[in-house]
Amino acid sequence: MRTALLQSPGRPGSIVENLKVLDEAAGRAAAAGAGLLAAPEMFLTGYAIGDDIARLAEPADGDSADAIAEIATRHGIAVAYGYPERSGERSETEGGGRVYNSVQLISADGTRLANYRKTHLFGCFERDHFTPGDQPVVQAELNGLRVGLMICYDVEFPENVRAHALAGTDLLVVPTAQMHPFQFVAESVVPVRAFENQMYIAYVNRVGPEGEFEFVGLSTLAGPDGVARTRAGRAEELVLADADPVLLAASRAANPYLQDRRPGLYGSLV
Amino acid sequence: MRTALLQSPGRPGSIVENLKVLDEAAGRAAAAGAGLLAAPEMFLTGYAIGDDIARLAEPADGDSADAIAEIATRHGIAVAYGYPERSGERSETEGGGRVYNSVQLISADGTRLANYRKTHLFGCFERDHFTPGDQPVVQAELNGLRVGLMICYDVEFPENVRAHALAGTDLLVVPTAQMHPFQFVAESVVPVRAFENQMYIAYVNRVGPEGEFEFVGLSTLAGPDGVARTRAGRAEELVLADADPVLLAASRAANPYLQDRRPGLYGSLV
Repeated sequence: MRTALLQSPGRPGSIVENLKVLDEAAGRAAAAGAGLLAAPEMFLTGYAIGDDIARLAEPADGDSADAIAEIATRHGIAVAYGYPERSGERSETEGGGRVYNSVQLISADGTRLANYRKTHLFGCFERDHFTPGDQPVVQAELNGLRVGLMICYDVEFPENVRAHALAGTDLLVVPTAQMHPFQFVAESVVPVRAFENQMYIAYVNRVGPEGEFEFVGLSTLAGPDGVARTRAGRAEELVLADADPVLLAASRAANPYLQDRRPGLYGSLV
Repeated sequence: MRTALLQSPGRPGSIVENLKVLDEAAGRAAAAGAGLLAAPEMFLTGYAIGDDIARLAEPADGDSADAIAEIATRHGIAVAYGYPERSGERSETEGGGRVYNSVQLISADGTRLANYRKTHLFGCFERDHFTPGDQPVVQAELNGLRVGLMICYDVEFPENVRAHALAGTDLLVVPTAQMHPFQFVAESVVPVRAFENQMYIAYVNRVGPEGEFEFVGLSTLAGPDGVARTRAGRAEELVLADADPVLLAASRAANPYLQDRRPGLYGSLV
């Protein structure tokens, strides 16, 4: 499945403008034969927007989800995008329900296929603004691949990606907001995760300065051989590459990491 | 602690010749200020020696261990080396006790500090010749660092290195017999393991052709920032670099992976 990575800052603070950017990218990606367009962490609203996170947060089936379903349907392409999710649950400490840092996958026919809430929050900024999710593995079937969802810091924990591999994830989609000086994650950690777990990983980043952060781009689609199929630079860019189930099967046969594991020796990890 | 990596094929099949190579390297490493010399997987006997593995296997306190303790004492340097270990346990299928693929650490005063038996055997060759070990984490204190031991394929499983990190390993010593086409492990997996676990990793390889294998060298000492402090080429070579506890402490403070883990979400791994 051809996969398009939208490396873009969008317009932090403006859902309307970000939907326009997403619409335009979905058109270009679909025209290039992509079956999936993935956008960065918090793409819907922007990332470094302080208390606007809570103000702009929406339910997983809110107005913006409807708008993105319409975009997906019109262009005939699935869309995965990061956004602040307001849940219906009441919070003890907040007034209007909890806010999660989420990614949602909507199919080319407008169906909401899966929604994942970031489980590993990064730093004080995220802990101040989000509740961590509690479901480690969220997946959906898409065009013959089992697609998994994860967000940014989550992928830096080998346990998280291993849990996806054990659950059969073929293509892990990871919207991110990766900032200086952590380029090593895009350049090295993501390809190694793909190799050690024998899967594809689509890591799609924000870019440029935003508030106190400097996002580093370098969005990558890494294959199960640890080789980047595409890697963006440091500018706004739409990059595309294929996740190939035939190559994936052959690579898994040659690299039997999952069969050679010894779970009985890993007890200290849990 | 300055650490020396002996990237060498030795003389497969000849313990006497390999002890000479080790003696000479220990002298050079000690003269360069190293506190530890690490040799590759199965350095004592050679790796691709077929049934000679069983013939040359020795107990952890056998004659070769005594000889290496003498080398260590004479040069004033600790030595970690790979060898085929014959255990006292009776095997149901073999006549003379089980054979493990082991690494032993002997201190500069000749004390046998730790002995580790490879838990994750690689491919048919190893499964034909060795019994897998059952103790995942083996450590010893050395010159102010907690040193852990592991062998080759073990390090490719993120679970194994994570178990060491949780047990406080500062410097993971990994004798290896890494062959073509798996250069990616030396070049990328080892630095990522060091980064994600915030430790030093000394990965010391064989080199050149041996039996059906072509060992790729590229021995590496990687730091907790994911940067290789030294990396050998494809030829026989003694390379040195420092494992610095001050830098390690600072890196751990800046990269709190172990604190940010959520063990309650990792249940599927065990």
